[in-house]
Amino acid sequence: MLRQLLEKKSLVVAGLMSGTSLDGIDVAIVRIDGCGMNAKVQPLHFESFSYDEELREKLKALCSVEHSDVAQVCGMNVVMAEKFAEAVLRTAELAGMKMEEIDLISSHGQTVWHIPLADAANAYLPKSTLQIGDLSVLAKRTGRPVVGDFRTADMAVGGQGAPLAPYGDLILFRDAAKGRILQNIGGIGNCTAIPAMGETARVEDAELIAFDTGPGNMVLDQVVHELSGGQLAYDADGAWAARGKVQADVLEQMLAHPYFAQLPPKTTGRELFGKAYTLAWLAGVQAQGLSPDDIVATATAFTAHSIARAYEAFILPRMEIAEVIVSGGGARNRTLLAMLQALLPQQAITTSDAFGISGDAKEAILFALLGNDWIHGVPNNLPSATGADRPTIMGKLALP
Amino acid sequence: MLRQLLEKKSLVVAGLMSGTSLDGIDVAIVRIDGCGMNAKVQPLHFESFSYDEELREKLKALCSVEHSDVAQVCGMNVVMAEKFAEAVLRTAELAGMKMEEIDLISSHGQTVWHIPLADAANAYLPKSTLQIGDLSVLAKRTGRPVVGDFRTADMAVGGQGAPLAPYGDLILFRDAAKGRILQNIGGIGNCTAIPAMGETARVEDAELIAFDTGPGNMVLDQVVHELSGGQLAYDADGAWAARGKVQADVLEQMLAHPYFAQLPPKTTGRELFGKAYTLAWLAGVQAQGLSPDDIVATATAFTAHSIARAYEAFILPRMEIAEVIVSGGGARNRTLLAMLQALLPQQAITTSDAFGISGDAKEAILFALLGNDWIHGVPNNLPSATGADRPTIMGKLALP
Ligand SMILES: Nc1ncnc2c1ncn2[C@@H]1O[C@H](COP(=O)(O)OP(=O)(O)OP(=O)(O)O)[C@@H](O)[C@H]1O
Ligand SMILES: Nc1ncnc2c1ncn2[C@@H]1O[C@H](COP(=O)(O)OP(=O)(O)OP(=O)(O)O)[C@@H](O)[C@H]1O
Repeated sequence: MLRQLLEKKSLVVAGLMSGTSLDGIDVAIVRIDGCGMNAKVQPLHFESFSYDEELREKLKALCSVEHSDVAQVCGMNVVMAEKFAEAVLRTAELAGMKMEEIDLISSHGQTVWHIPLADAANAYLPKSTLQIGDLSVLAKRTGRPVVGDFRTADMAVGGQGAPLAPYGDLILFRDAAKGRILQNIGGIGNCTAIPAMGETARVEDAELIAFDTGPGNMVLDQVVHELSGGQLAYDADGAWAARGKVQADVLEQMLAHPYFAQLPPKTTGRELFGKAYTLAWLAGVQAQGLSPDDIVATATAFTAHSIARAYEAFILPRMEIAEVIVSGGGARNRTLLAMLQALLPQQAITTSDAFGISGDAKEAILFALLGNDWIHGVPNNLPSATGADRPTIMGKLALP
Repeated sequence: MLRQLLEKKSLVVAGLMSGTSLDGIDVAIVRIDGCGMNAKVQPLHFESFSYDEELREKLKALCSVEHSDVAQVCGMNVVMAEKFAEAVLRTAELAGMKMEEIDLISSHGQTVWHIPLADAANAYLPKSTLQIGDLSVLAKRTGRPVVGDFRTADMAVGGQGAPLAPYGDLILFRDAAKGRILQNIGGIGNCTAIPAMGETARVEDAELIAFDTGPGNMVLDQVVHELSGGQLAYDADGAWAARGKVQADVLEQMLAHPYFAQLPPKTTGRELFGKAYTLAWLAGVQAQGLSPDDIVATATAFTAHSIARAYEAFILPRMEIAEVIVSGGGARNRTLLAMLQALLPQQAITTSDAFGISGDAKEAILFALLGNDWIHGVPNNLPSATGADRPTIMGKLALP
């Protein structure tokens, strides 16, 4: 059956993603013609499944040194594979597809630990990363071949095993004539800048710039949560921010945070812009007498300006950009997008949905691409994004 | 490159085994023609590598709920892969082979946890097993394709993921006309009984009986250690036992242990026949006034009798056995082998070395067979030994 699979020029692949936010599982079923730079993707169906509260708690415990042990890793590796299998089976059902119509499943796995840099003081904690959800269990449960567990391969050739998203951005969104930035606005904001590459470009030629721009919705969500007395989780469509006025001096202070001056590649997270940061900031602006409307508007501007300034500092001097394509939950915040457009008058701000690729499905589709490349025998890492020494084939294959 | 590999009828495979005793890594390079029941194995080179004390301590900590955590699992998964890679590279060098002459590496991995039966009280501890030593890291370091991490696949189709050894015993030692028992005498004793199978037998037809016979060297080693004041680790060649007299009444009491009456399939370990058991027994026979020589002789007879009685109770009533082929360190204990021959006058007692397969290399060769089958696309589990519902292809493939 493997031989037959290797012969196919066009594959139906179910890409599976389960993010570090431990919210659940995304499944994108796509048809892919060709591979590598020439892969042509046709989205067929997308579903998201939330983890139940108990599972999320178990995963949280597993993702901490204090509350984890080897027995839990052993057990959860199978538990997660069963969940992934359920998610694929259900997605096929909802798509009206038979499992036999799916040629391949490609699974990221659930990250439970990540060591991007070796611990110099402990030789037993080298650069490494751990994604659970056993590939064989997933293959046997679904009856389909499974490729997955990609990141260690990139690390083994000198990379950081992350970010992987820029590869999908390159394949799905590059343009022969236009430079584009893919901007994801999740908890954190991250971007991939792709120059115009001509018609015959190869992966090796891609001179991408990819980094975290700063907070995406993280600060804003916390502010909205606090100011609404816990009633609201986020500013739906940016309606609240639209009622306020941005306080320029406060904003400038925020943008003075040293993260924004750091040269890419760079990544950030809750350590810098989490609850502690936001509550301290909020106390300060409330003491200054800012109204809730103005506070929300300013927090929204913080995200917009940090993105635009990052482009001006690190991307626009190096390549021409015609379009910014926004994805992630923040793409639904109209006030944020309007601010971004005002700050970037030379660029057209659009959303990935306009390209027939729902922002929610983008990551799951990326993993479908990675698995498809494995089967075609072509490298699927992007050294310019991960820092790897060379292109290599990431992933392992398990048979049903 | 995968396509070319799938075309090959004859593969040079490096089989890697690292046992639960945490002693080190065995590497067997073999040439294999064909696959499944028709695999013909030609051993080319064998090497053993011991873990250093520090690594062994780290592994011991990792194999305990109290001293392990997710970060260690993440890091050691890469550390062990690097060790495996070093072991293969060094073995090739010692064999005078270029790495390119090795078509495939097939790795068991280091078991760090094993849950043979689901924990009824905890849904997050299902039947599962965890072998570390990342396959991609091993593939990238050696430049060769790697198959490995076999056991979860058998578990996913209802098996216990163990024992795997009977499959190798079947392929390497079955005979068209003679029934054979493969008896391994490591810490624990375990046997695989293979009836005469004719010339055209298929794996599915194999009606094997496989189980742990009881202690192998475990009790005897502890006794020798105690009686020599910690000077000796084992009774070399059985010389000490040869000087004593077996105490029949003491022996009968030992053989009354309920484990021996249990029906196979069954497994045992340190829980039953470890230090606690042996020290209590030793105190008893010393109080009775037995001489050290007689104690060692009786402990040796314990292993021999437990093996012979297990055959009489569970194997010989169901199949004719012409030969018993002994492997493991206990095969070097001449007194033990002589006792076994006296107890089994109808059977010829030999060692696997007589078949051109060193007892030490047997397990590493088994994993070479399992990887070879993966590449040929044929099932490599043995439902009659593991309890699986069906034959299935175990293992995952990582590319260099
Ligand atoms: N209609 C909406 N209007 C404004 N903001 C929205 C809307 N829907 C979602 N969001 C924002 O998007 C966030 C969720 O986005 P997304 O799912 O991309 O993030 P995530 O997956 O949790 O983050 P990450 O990508 O960092 O893992 C919400 O917390 C909210 O801030
Ligand atoms: N020359 C010898 N004479 C007698 N006994 C020996 C000799 N050499 C090794 N042994 C025995 O063999 C044991 C080692 O056997 P082996 O390597 O098969 O066991 P192991 O791999 O530790 O166990 P397991 O197979 O259970 O993992 C020693 O502890 C000793 O009891």
